[in-house]
Amino acid sequence: MRIEKQLIDQHNQKLEAKHRRAFNYISEEISDIESLLRKVEKFQIAIPSWALGTGGTRFGRFTGKGEPSSLEQKIEDVGLLHALNKSSGAISLHIPWDIPQDAEKIKELATSYDLVFDAVNSNTFQDQPGQAYSYKFGSLQHVDPNVRKQAVDHNIEVIKHGIALGSKALTVWLADGSSFPGQLNFREAFQNTLESLKEIYKHLPEDWKMFVEYKAFEPNFYSTTIADWGQSLLLANKLGDKAYTLVDLGHHLPNANIEQIVSLLLMEGKLAGFHFNDSKYADDDLTAGSIKPYQLFLIFNELVDGMDAAGIDHATGLGWMIDASHNLKDPLVDLLQSVEAIKIAYTQALMVDRKALRAAQQANDVVKAQEILQDVFRTDVRAIVAEARFRSGGALDPVGLFEEVAVRTRLIEERGSNSVATGL
Amino acid sequence: MRIEKQLIDQHNQKLEAKHRRAFNYISEEISDIESLLRKVEKFQIAIPSWALGTGGTRFGRFTGKGEPSSLEQKIEDVGLLHALNKSSGAISLHIPWDIPQDAEKIKELATSYDLVFDAVNSNTFQDQPGQAYSYKFGSLQHVDPNVRKQAVDHNIEVIKHGIALGSKALTVWLADGSSFPGQLNFREAFQNTLESLKEIYKHLPEDWKMFVEYKAFEPNFYSTTIADWGQSLLLANKLGDKAYTLVDLGHHLPNANIEQIVSLLLMEGKLAGFHFNDSKYADDDLTAGSIKPYQLFLIFNELVDGMDAAGIDHATGLGWMIDASHNLKDPLVDLLQSVEAIKIAYTQALMVDRKALRAAQQANDVVKAQEILQDVFRTDVRAIVAEARFRSGGALDPVGLFEEVAVRTRLIEERGSNSVATGL
Amino acid sequence: MRIEKQLIDQHNQKLEAKHRRAFNYISEEISDIESLLRKVEKFQIAIPSWALGTGGTRFGRFTGKGEPSSLEQKIEDVGLLHALNKSSGAISLHIPWDIPQDAEKIKELATSYDLVFDAVNSNTFQDQPGQAYSYKFGSLQHVDPNVRKQAVDHNIEVIKHGIALGSKALTVWLADGSSFPGQLNFREAFQNTLESLKEIYKHLPEDWKMFVEYKAFEPNFYSTTIADWGQSLLLANKLGDKAYTLVDLGHHLPNANIEQIVSLLLMEGKLAGFHFNDSKYADDDLTAGSIKPYQLFLIFNELVDGMDAAGIDHATGLGWMIDASHNLKDPLVDLLQSVEAIKIAYTQALMVDRKALRAAQQANDVVKAQEILQDVFRTDVRAIVAEARFRSGGALDPVGLFEEVAVRTRLIEERGSNSVATGL
Amino acid sequence: MRIEKQLIDQHNQKLEAKHRRAFNYISEEISDIESLLRKVEKFQIAIPSWALGTGGTRFGRFTGKGEPSSLEQKIEDVGLLHALNKSSGAISLHIPWDIPQDAEKIKELATSYDLVFDAVNSNTFQDQPGQAYSYKFGSLQHVDPNVRKQAVDHNIEVIKHGIALGSKALTVWLADGSSFPGQLNFREAFQNTLESLKEIYKHLPEDWKMFVEYKAFEPNFYSTTIADWGQSLLLANKLGDKAYTLVDLGHHLPNANIEQIVSLLLMEGKLAGFHFNDSKYADDDLTAGSIKPYQLFLIFNELVDGMDAAGIDHATGLGWMIDASHNLKDPLVDLLQSVEAIKIAYTQALMVDRKALRAAQQANDVVKAQEILQDVFRTDVRAIVAEARFRSGGALDPVGLFEEVAVRTRLIEERGSNSVATGL
Repeated sequence: MRIEKQLIDQHNQKLEAKHRRAFNYISEEISDIESLLRKVEKFQIAIPSWALGTGGTRFGRFTGKGEPSSLEQKIEDVGLLHALNKSSGAISLHIPWDIPQDAEKIKELATSYDLVFDAVNSNTFQDQPGQAYSYKFGSLQHVDPNVRKQAVDHNIEVIKHGIALGSKALTVWLADGSSFPGQLNFREAFQNTLESLKEIYKHLPEDWKMFVEYKAFEPNFYSTTIADWGQSLLLANKLGDKAYTLVDLGHHLPNANIEQIVSLLLMEGKLAGFHFNDSKYADDDLTAGSIKPYQLFLIFNELVDGMDAAGIDHATGLGWMIDASHNLKDPLVDLLQSVEAIKIAYTQALMVDRKALRAAQQANDVVKAQEILQDVFRTDVRAIVAEARFRSGGALDPVGLFEEVAVRTRLIEERGSNSVATGL
Repeated sequence: MRIEKQLIDQHNQKLEAKHRRAFNYISEEISDIESLLRKVEKFQIAIPSWALGTGGTRFGRFTGKGEPSSLEQKIEDVGLLHALNKSSGAISLHIPWDIPQDAEKIKELATSYDLVFDAVNSNTFQDQPGQAYSYKFGSLQHVDPNVRKQAVDHNIEVIKHGIALGSKALTVWLADGSSFPGQLNFREAFQNTLESLKEIYKHLPEDWKMFVEYKAFEPNFYSTTIADWGQSLLLANKLGDKAYTLVDLGHHLPNANIEQIVSLLLMEGKLAGFHFNDSKYADDDLTAGSIKPYQLFLIFNELVDGMDAAGIDHATGLGWMIDASHNLKDPLVDLLQSVEAIKIAYTQALMVDRKALRAAQQANDVVKAQEILQDVFRTDVRAIVAEARFRSGGALDPVGLFEEVAVRTRLIEERGSNSVATGL
Repeated sequence: MRIEKQLIDQHNQKLEAKHRRAFNYISEEISDIESLLRKVEKFQIAIPSWALGTGGTRFGRFTGKGEPSSLEQKIEDVGLLHALNKSSGAISLHIPWDIPQDAEKIKELATSYDLVFDAVNSNTFQDQPGQAYSYKFGSLQHVDPNVRKQAVDHNIEVIKHGIALGSKALTVWLADGSSFPGQLNFREAFQNTLESLKEIYKHLPEDWKMFVEYKAFEPNFYSTTIADWGQSLLLANKLGDKAYTLVDLGHHLPNANIEQIVSLLLMEGKLAGFHFNDSKYADDDLTAGSIKPYQLFLIFNELVDGMDAAGIDHATGLGWMIDASHNLKDPLVDLLQSVEAIKIAYTQALMVDRKALRAAQQANDVVKAQEILQDVFRTDVRAIVAEARFRSGGALDPVGLFEEVAVRTRLIEERGSNSVATGL
Repeated sequence: MRIEKQLIDQHNQKLEAKHRRAFNYISEEISDIESLLRKVEKFQIAIPSWALGTGGTRFGRFTGKGEPSSLEQKIEDVGLLHALNKSSGAISLHIPWDIPQDAEKIKELATSYDLVFDAVNSNTFQDQPGQAYSYKFGSLQHVDPNVRKQAVDHNIEVIKHGIALGSKALTVWLADGSSFPGQLNFREAFQNTLESLKEIYKHLPEDWKMFVEYKAFEPNFYSTTIADWGQSLLLANKLGDKAYTLVDLGHHLPNANIEQIVSLLLMEGKLAGFHFNDSKYADDDLTAGSIKPYQLFLIFNELVDGMDAAGIDHATGLGWMIDASHNLKDPLVDLLQSVEAIKIAYTQALMVDRKALRAAQQANDVVKAQEILQDVFRTDVRAIVAEARFRSGGALDPVGLFEEVAVRTRLIEERGSNSVATGL
């Protein structure tokens, strides 16, 4: 299904008076509202193909209905999101869950929804049917060169799929690690991983990036071979200019100061981008902004500051993606909520008075520094985000319109109740 | 010093146009703004006497200037806060740091600032000069009955001071615990603590409450004898109807769901009240709302819901106190920031559409439930809090006025640079 | 398959000289070695039926070979373990994964392996095919009374299966909780859970116990309705004398002092027993003793002390069970390692000089208290555990013998490569 | 006081029969016991001068008696420890707490106790009387170049003191960071710190090392400017060949895999050494090995493996120091317990069958790898450590002898009850 322009217009007309009042109020408080709106409009967050189905836990999965069962349907889903919020104009594929049979047709389909292809993702944390070697004991770190080669070859194939679709980056997330003391020689695991990544790196096109993701724990529970930003950065530096560190909000030890990590990675010119989600305990993969919205704002505060200092374009310089699963909500609505939270945080970060903040910092005026950040965070910027969406042709209330037009019901009619998406 | 009414009026006049615009905008969004304002006006948060000086860490203390060096000056400080924000109309004393020599005169002084005396606090976690027995190995838990008796007697004396001042509650926070496995018999420590508390409980006046505080760790680093809400509740239930559990935001293990604990304690009729502060790592005692403002809102959401369900008056039914130290900010400004954050959270919690939330919960509409809470949290309610303060005669911008009239400079002139407050 | 007595004897003969030397050395250090050996011999740890297959994570499962595909084969597996270590003389079934078709025949089979049936476990955290209502939003806590009734009925049926097999306890572990703020009314969820448990409790036979398990998080990631020992104890107290709190080592927030919780639950007469496993980050479900063996010893130190104080028989008074999954090891060998670690910890706890420890505690001699515990923990007691096993007819080195006789190979021959066990 | 050789001999004679039996038993199990003993004998752990007094928490300090009140007395204390355990042959000074007035005399005194001077430590986390600028807002990171210069100059002076005493390393631990979001520009703080360190680095003698310590949190509670090994390594790499990363066991986020960090730092040739202590919650600074002895062993397992791979001499290649405070034990006994735990862990690590472990790792034999490590950890090696100490002229039971000769009582007689050591 596609959401007809007319439905969006009708929806917007109903809400416009209320929206206009809010927007008029807030826009008068802001000096250059037009410039702000343009930045917010341009900011797009990619949707991973595996977030379109209902994710689960090791204790089970409560599948939803009308899930996309093919790559085409996944693109259709992201198209729906993008029609509603005009902020999800990219899709990130996962191989082998989403192997395109005909890349050109898939590209055309995506283009028809105004979508491009974000980073491609490899999978060497699960065994696929017919696979020669198992990843039970790791992939790029594996003691057996045959396993490493298989995993390297898989990544090279993923790059090829990405080239065909117009992607410009490969994201490598490894589950590699160990669950018991003694299982692994840490140095050897690191060196094997480095050598494997070097092999993959050789196959990166000139204008591509390699995103090296890290994660503190899970699914390995004693050590992870790329466990923190320090290890990822070490690898990225050894690999070369095209290798970067990817930050996923849920991949840290408890209480880590992620905004500081982001700032330092930007300082080193090595931040690849972000996987957004939220969590309270571990890698809970909850809706972005649903648990710690202030942290999300603080991260964007560092992103904006650091990108501006380094001359990086907000919209295109780094990779922005959601990586949340959601076993309790409709996946599409969950993604709409995530995108909204991210854009609110980004908008607020843009509104920080950086000159005043810098002055407060130089004067060690801690009170003032806190006031500057909290003033922005306490400001209701939803009308700004909505206005940007409105101007791009999106819905003033994407979640509301999703319910109004009964998107899921229509998808179930089209796809049936039992269609199940690939993914976790 | 006292802040003259005229200064506040001048300050308010300058800000009123801007404030009026914001208040008009938001008040139209709210159905019964007057009722809301009355609740916000009435809500007072007590100031602990030890938060008026510059707190430190075990690595040292960077003392500020013009700190209050007597109980009278501490009351003066709280009077200043209350004049500015009209929300700090109570002071919580700590014995032996604040022993009133002449209770009547102290009461008169407090009354002149429109202040009352909140819960009194005992101290059996430090040794005082001339003390017969040391608390090195605990107080109410101690294996030596002489130490326990000394600690019990001290608490009884604290109650007496409280009676003289008009307090209605005793807060017992114990550092008791152990730092090494084997040091303590856990059951014996618990039973000794229970017996000691029973002794103290006997001396509580009829209309008093005993607040039993818990803390996960620090200053003991292996076990704490009242370590969590379960242990505190067990004690409170064994003690009787006047004993309650006190929650301090910083006293939990990482990632604890404090709002759920609050809800269950209210359900059991055993929530004493709150010590507000914020933290990222441990009992960091940072400004309330400075790190996790959404958590603060979620806690107030449960407080409002649970107090309403139990018919508890918001303003008077429970004990509200700040318990933060701050070695980097002016303590008074820090307290103004804490109170503001607390009142924002309380105001937002009052605005939650409970009927709609309940409907969403009954329908397992997780998306809707999240939207309801986040809609309120994203609403800028600062003008409501300011209006409530304004109507009570306080300043529209307490932190701003504090700086404008150079409160600290005037205090230094009056007290000298080297006055140091008792406390941590 | 069964492990022939003769194989065990041959194995033991080979190792006996070395064992004898070690046992002679250590036994001379111990005053009443015979009494100690008897206790160690009697101590049995139940094996859960779901631990016999290869557990996985949400990222996948690397299935082993020759897994038991029927209840009969699961009993056979536990029989093998018990033949090797003479310490795994009970099996704990999980319904609906292990519904016995013919209880009498199953009992006979178990008896032939010298096994009894430990607590039965219900499952309301997953949907089963054909189930009328989904547990997606909880079971005993559910807002819909139909769902609650379905879950209650399931538990009643589990009790019936347990009665038929001779079990004496029902373990209730609930995944119930919420993943997003606002999703749940905490008080209502608690009350619904309580009412549901009361219904189930009514159907408990006179000599049965109900084990109420708690867990901090996972699979719900915002709140769990029975999240900590305090909540479990609250429920157990409201339910009655047959209800107890069950402790699983992996179900706590980071850094929780589990040994203190155990001690207090024993003091309150409400400890049901234990689910053993180990973890570094969350509910990692690793081999018992593989990460924090000293903590395991400290827990047993409290268990022995508390059981002795309360006159509880070590072997029969509480429920002891392993609850670990293991996606990297052969499940049977993993269980052998867990049992060995548990028995070592238990043996060491028995060897603590309680009189000296008590004296050190009474004197606040922290150094001495630590020395007493660490002296025991540093003592090599493996020969004692081995001797107890030897005297019961088990193998001196169960893991070694498992490999020698190629148990898994023989099981694969019997069952085929592709047999897969039910479970997580 | 000095412990007379004759007292040690008498003590050893009493214990020798029992020791001999234990040593004979264990030494027969080991192939090259003499080589092992030599390594254990040579392994020395430095004592920091600030650990000789009773440390406290922010809630207070329960001072002991007979504490060393001068540098001379601190050296005497370490001399006592070394006489007892022959493993504490170095002292690490802290400036300005331990400024030597006459370096030559101090060196002579140390030599008379067979002690050398380990790394010298600077202090820019506290303000000293008469200091021109405050470190309230940091030192090497400070926005004010005057503060940075003052801190740099202090470090240069510390180096001078170290040169005079024969030290070969400067340890820089910074409390620098921030307690509130917005307070600090992370990049600027990092760059300022780097520039300041470069200044200090210039003043390092050719044969010196700079140890850059990191810490996750405390005393700053939002960010620390050198917060993790990644940040320390980044600095060390930018500084040059003489700069290394120092690991303190208590300076990590919860659940960090420290052994993996150690392994990678050794791989990178950038591990400076270790500050030993133990903790359950935060930087608790408890006795080494008192909470997580298995972790301590696993760390030594990586240290031995990594040092051997890199050809680093165990005894002299890295810096080994205790950094624990202890407000409940006699500091000297606490240090004896720490050293014992460290030497046990080191001895066990030396006994790991590395060839077999490597084979198990290459075969992904997780069971075997775990068995190899746990076999060693479960082995009672205390007689080996005692034998090494005995051969060096130390006491078979240092803690026992400390009590027998009433060391503290004699120190109190000499120094008085009220002498208080400088430190935390």
